[in-house]
Amino acid sequence: MDAIEKIIALEKTAMEAWLNGNPSPFLELYSEDFTYFDPSMENRLDGLDKIRELYEGMRGKLKTDRFEMVNPVVQLNGSMAVLSYNLDIYSGGTVWKENCTEVYSLGEDGEWRIVHSHFSPTKVGE
Amino acid sequence: MDAIEKIIALEKTAMEAWLNGNPSPFLELYSEDFTYFDPSMENRLDGLDKIRELYEGMRGKLKTDRFEMVNPVVQLNGSMAVLSYNLDIYSGGTVWKENCTEVYSLGEDGEWRIVHSHFSPTKVGE
Repeated sequence: MDAIEKIIALEKTAMEAWLNGNPSPFLELYSEDFTYFDPSMENRLDGLDKIRELYEGMRGKLKTDRFEMVNPVVQLNGSMAVLSYNLDIYSGGTVWKENCTEVYSLGEDGEWRIVHSHFSPTKVGE
Repeated sequence: MDAIEKIIALEKTAMEAWLNGNPSPFLELYSEDFTYFDPSMENRLDGLDKIRELYEGMRGKLKTDRFEMVNPVVQLNGSMAVLSYNLDIYSGGTVWKENCTEVYSLGEDGEWRIVHSHFSPTKVGE
């Protein structure tokens, strides 16, 4: 599996768990210096401790039917890569659409970790 | 000037021009494989040609008083870096706030270019 396939697989596994109430795979992927933009927050969240607190507070609360990672692209240069995709989340007959950016960085231990995430709602046509 | 200072300086110069109707510095910074999430679009924009068309259509139309790049952080690993910051744009007595992510990549020619951008409105407190 090359780096691009690896990164997409890590993301899909973590998203599948997260959208069913389990934040652990994402929390294991985040670096210590992780930075995070969320559409529901007034400020960027900086550092793994803060995201852990936020995510643990939501453990078990999220349940969705299924999701699609639409048109994922990985742009890679050496030991860093950016994965961007549209996320369609299906739940109870409705669909929620987000723009997703995940910046992955290769650690000295040979593991890819997410150093920055940016999620925002996708504009939906009138 | 180290890579982090260089990236912040490139971004500030391009943003200053863009917020006064001149897209040229940003267009010169974007890579050929540039990908872009904009809050006003239903899909990610892929490729320099598309962003050039969009930005040229807005040349001369934007005028703002001033902006602040709030709390910029650059996370760097080798030849790629992610710059994230809050952007406060002041114009005519109002302020517009955005979450900004810019992924920079160092080309073989030694120049930093933006390979991915993600802008979204910052949530404003009730």
